[in-house]
Amino acid sequence: MKNDKDLKTIIIKKPLKLDCGKTISNFPIAYETYGSLNDSKDNAILIFHALTGDQFVSGINPITKKEGWWNNVVGPDKSINTNKYFVICANVIGGCMGSFGPNHKNLVSNKIYGTDFPVITINDMVNAQVNLLDHFKIKKLFSVIGGSMGGMQVLQFVSNFPDKTQTAVPIACTYSHSAQNIAFNELGRQAITADHNWLAGNYTSKNKIPDKGLAVARMAAHITYLSKKGLQEKFGRKLQERDDFKFGFDADFQIESYLRYQGSVFVDRFDANSYLYITRAMDYFDLAKQFNGNLSDAFKKTKAKFFVISFTSDWLYPTQENKEIVIALNAIGANVGFVEIESDKGHDSFLLNVPDFLQTVKNFLDQSYKELKNES
Amino acid sequence: MKNDKDLKTIIIKKPLKLDCGKTISNFPIAYETYGSLNDSKDNAILIFHALTGDQFVSGINPITKKEGWWNNVVGPDKSINTNKYFVICANVIGGCMGSFGPNHKNLVSNKIYGTDFPVITINDMVNAQVNLLDHFKIKKLFSVIGGSMGGMQVLQFVSNFPDKTQTAVPIACTYSHSAQNIAFNELGRQAITADHNWLAGNYTSKNKIPDKGLAVARMAAHITYLSKKGLQEKFGRKLQERDDFKFGFDADFQIESYLRYQGSVFVDRFDANSYLYITRAMDYFDLAKQFNGNLSDAFKKTKAKFFVISFTSDWLYPTQENKEIVIALNAIGANVGFVEIESDKGHDSFLLNVPDFLQTVKNFLDQSYKELKNES
Repeated sequence: MKNDKDLKTIIIKKPLKLDCGKTISNFPIAYETYGSLNDSKDNAILIFHALTGDQFVSGINPITKKEGWWNNVVGPDKSINTNKYFVICANVIGGCMGSFGPNHKNLVSNKIYGTDFPVITINDMVNAQVNLLDHFKIKKLFSVIGGSMGGMQVLQFVSNFPDKTQTAVPIACTYSHSAQNIAFNELGRQAITADHNWLAGNYTSKNKIPDKGLAVARMAAHITYLSKKGLQEKFGRKLQERDDFKFGFDADFQIESYLRYQGSVFVDRFDANSYLYITRAMDYFDLAKQFNGNLSDAFKKTKAKFFVISFTSDWLYPTQENKEIVIALNAIGANVGFVEIESDKGHDSFLLNVPDFLQTVKNFLDQSYKELKNES
Repeated sequence: MKNDKDLKTIIIKKPLKLDCGKTISNFPIAYETYGSLNDSKDNAILIFHALTGDQFVSGINPITKKEGWWNNVVGPDKSINTNKYFVICANVIGGCMGSFGPNHKNLVSNKIYGTDFPVITINDMVNAQVNLLDHFKIKKLFSVIGGSMGGMQVLQFVSNFPDKTQTAVPIACTYSHSAQNIAFNELGRQAITADHNWLAGNYTSKNKIPDKGLAVARMAAHITYLSKKGLQEKFGRKLQERDDFKFGFDADFQIESYLRYQGSVFVDRFDANSYLYITRAMDYFDLAKQFNGNLSDAFKKTKAKFFVISFTSDWLYPTQENKEIVIALNAIGANVGFVEIESDKGHDSFLLNVPDFLQTVKNFLDQSYKELKNES
């Protein structure tokens, strides 16, 4: 899949106590940067990736040889302008692109962790990544930005480190994973663990890959990333390279072929156990619960300027759930903007070329940075 | 799973040409009846079941020992009152409760069909079931009724046999399976065929069951049967018999436990290959396409009185898709009523105790039957 030695990595020596109770130390965080940190070190943006993302946000991902997952958004003169800002993105712990994860070797037992890897949380993820600020000697970020699970990390980061960012942009996310969200994640986990080759998580040491189960998990998730209307407009009932039904179980419809393709390319770039761990972290996420049910309390200590973005056709993290974050921020008089972007592209809108979204992100960042410079 | 000899069955001797081009004959249709056919034989209702339903609509299903799937609706003095009406329901062909299906033996090769069974369509299903009218010497049914895939059969039946029913009640259905519907069905099929024990469909002869894959397929489908709001109200983030997270991959949340249970009980009563065949039939369903894209033409020859029912929180077959049927009927001045029932219970509303729904069905049938009797 990849060769870890090709990846930029820092080793976090400082012990990190995880929510599960275990403590980890001397663990790797793989990261990438884009643009240059200025002398005043006030132009840094930390981007958090979503479930299946990684540190390669912009340009060509050197591992997959495809465009970085946020290449529409991040780059020279783009919405997150790397001619202006210094962008950092790290692979989350639990992931499979170089950061400490279940496919790493346990140096004590000399075996690959598999399901012996500790269950991690969104809180653990941001507590690991905050070490990047020390690494770059950055006292305060200009912004923390992320969509989907990246948005959850934005919220958790500001809550944990209220003085470490000027602005925060949670996109298409939620402060608390809903029953339906958990249900779809559990479906993916069940698909993976049902695979004969999963081998109770020990597939790597046996040279197997639970690729069929992982592909099914990806297909399930992929359906949730698109809107019913978007699917209908893009695929409808169009047939796949045939004039009529074949009366068999091949992919007659384009949508079938598309889903199968999405499943098959995913297994080449993603680790099944990482999928289990990261979905678990999302399901455990409930920021309000960390503050006895009062979400506003999570943000009481910060002066960060928030900008919350949702999409009309996102049914995974619908506008209403994004608005609840805005309401909690308004309740304590926080500085918060909100926009719901019109789009038929569902939850995936934040990854795609949606002009209103791209313009909105650019405007918010550039205006906020101008204000920051005028103040200082 | 069951013993076919316990089931009421008729053998259809007449050859039936299937949409796939093959012809079948001397094949069994398993059915059940409730109530009594009156002397004028004008009180018969043919109920069509949904994807995983069977002929046991009312009372206790003798195979599963659980309530029949429409026991809320059908029975003495219930909405479909078996003191008054004679109810017939048959297992669809392709199914696994006694009607001709992929787990039957091919009498030529003496092997279980598996994926050698012909791919069947909704059209084939109703063309097989219409033989029940001859069996009971019924010239014209009082009503054809069904929800979900049962609703598709209602539409197809009236289109194929415009003079064979007085009324038609399609519930929570569509005239054409959407891309999202196909996507979820394909997900289920992929889960089944990914199972190591599926064995290219030949699991029965090898004494295996692809139970894990079938359970995943059921979990996926089950999520689509419930609304986001309904799931949130019923389960939310409630934990399963524990005070806090266990930081593992057991079912921490009630919703996880519930889905796993739904998957596990399903595999005891349903056949994996039948799941493939029946979902395929649903995906192929496009009644408008049968009439060169003009849905109204499907109903031009019938004088049947229609009543279309949808549910507010059904996102699998949303109100809009049900309304399109009404619009097509209105366009030719057909006799059609429509109601959208308020319910948080999602697509499953038609199976559950939703008082407005129960009352609506009762009113429509009893009023229509009264009119019929006054006319004659």
